[in-house]
Amino acid sequence: MMAQPGHPGHQPRDDGPKTVPGVRNILAIASNKGGVGKSTVAVNLAIALAQTGASVGLLDADITGPNIPTMMGFEAGFMAKQNQGLHAESRYGIKVASLGFLLPRGTPVVWRGPMIGSGVRQLLHDLPWGDLDYLIIDLPPGTSDASMTMCQEAPIAGAIIVSTPQAVALEDAIKAVGMFEKLNVPVFGIVENMSYFVCPHCGERTEIFLAGGGARLADELGVPLLGQVPLQANLPGLADAGQPIVAAEPQSPAAQALAVVARRVTDALAAVPR
Amino acid sequence: MMAQPGHPGHQPRDDGPKTVPGVRNILAIASNKGGVGKSTVAVNLAIALAQTGASVGLLDADITGPNIPTMMGFEAGFMAKQNQGLHAESRYGIKVASLGFLLPRGTPVVWRGPMIGSGVRQLLHDLPWGDLDYLIIDLPPGTSDASMTMCQEAPIAGAIIVSTPQAVALEDAIKAVGMFEKLNVPVFGIVENMSYFVCPHCGERTEIFLAGGGARLADELGVPLLGQVPLQANLPGLADAGQPIVAAEPQSPAAQALAVVARRVTDALAAVPR
Repeated sequence: MMAQPGHPGHQPRDDGPKTVPGVRNILAIASNKGGVGKSTVAVNLAIALAQTGASVGLLDADITGPNIPTMMGFEAGFMAKQNQGLHAESRYGIKVASLGFLLPRGTPVVWRGPMIGSGVRQLLHDLPWGDLDYLIIDLPPGTSDASMTMCQEAPIAGAIIVSTPQAVALEDAIKAVGMFEKLNVPVFGIVENMSYFVCPHCGERTEIFLAGGGARLADELGVPLLGQVPLQANLPGLADAGQPIVAAEPQSPAAQALAVVARRVTDALAAVPR
Repeated sequence: MMAQPGHPGHQPRDDGPKTVPGVRNILAIASNKGGVGKSTVAVNLAIALAQTGASVGLLDADITGPNIPTMMGFEAGFMAKQNQGLHAESRYGIKVASLGFLLPRGTPVVWRGPMIGSGVRQLLHDLPWGDLDYLIIDLPPGTSDASMTMCQEAPIAGAIIVSTPQAVALEDAIKAVGMFEKLNVPVFGIVENMSYFVCPHCGERTEIFLAGGGARLADELGVPLLGQVPLQANLPGLADAGQPIVAAEPQSPAAQALAVVARRVTDALAAVPR
């Protein structure tokens, strides 16, 4: 794929980031490794920001494995069923868009990289997002097409890196930080997820994934630790039921930790020179 | 990227699967979703098969987030440090190859799809794997380039799908099954990982990720449930220390469950018509 001089618009990623009309701050949530709670942080950060009175959008950039619809209580493929084109739908006070709104349950998206890039580009630039204080982009695992395209297309104000405290998650998180540096996107900090588990039977804490790794990583990389979110026994169940924890149980330890993350992110944004 | 007629070898993926000389059975481990324990299952399945006397290789096809080196106790980038070219290294009785053997800790691989495809192709066809009863391929999350290239390049005997019991993991696992069907690769079954957690303080079981989802999924898709592996409190720590559970604690519940998976996989292979 070579750039085509004289054909602007054919290779929009070569034009550099383009603003999204009406959107003031774009934030990317990344981890490189999957399954560490990236989408959980994205959903709850978006809702926590909306709870402060901001207008917030959430873009699911995971084309081959979009989980945002289930976590927000949308049925897979509901827009296609209703013969609707893809658009952002409101729930829990935020606007959400995902390719999962068009795909019936179980439909695989077996696309090579250029198609993935085109998919995320359309979610960003072809949907009428309207007036937003924040657009949260939930990036898929890996540092390949979806992430590269988003970083090159969107004027991302800052990236938030999610990791569990495990070595294998941390080593992937460092690579995510490296990717954002390569692509000139500021990293706002690290969220350590699944820091510890509190047994609902005896109340004892077990650091299943070896707590403290997130703090050490933040230290090593010289970026802030934005928060430590416990693995709350009922959180996966609530997520499966489409009930994000900051909306369903705002007083729970996990929700409180996520609200702290939201505050630290707005603080980081306020400190960015304009 | 268009196919180049008259340039055979330039687009080897168009030639269909090519046998890997000396390798009798290729197995793919996939999940679509990351962080569900795909690499854990791949590593431990490989070692469990080797413990039965078989010769086994393990190919880490996760180019942007290779975790196999850490899980097997290899230092990131050790081959590059020793000025060695990439080759398979033996440990715990199996031969292992990963791009992580060449990459210093934290080095991001910011490659678009065609480069990813080329990377996995080289791991498969350009390394001298030697005589192997089984070559286990650990696929990255997603159903894009790495997975597509492997399915098109390698004569995969069967795929093993790993999922946690959570809805979001299951919905991604169904897509992995769909991808293999599209690409004409038989699916041997589902491994449910992190089925339940046993509190090391009180011994009580908590189904953090909602047990039973793997069984329901296997039932829905008409494929076998190959096993249910508990989230053992010390498993992440052992993995971080490069000590796979079937080698370090063969009598533990997680190791026993993984050994059952290995037996069921060999049974499934034995039933494939040749």
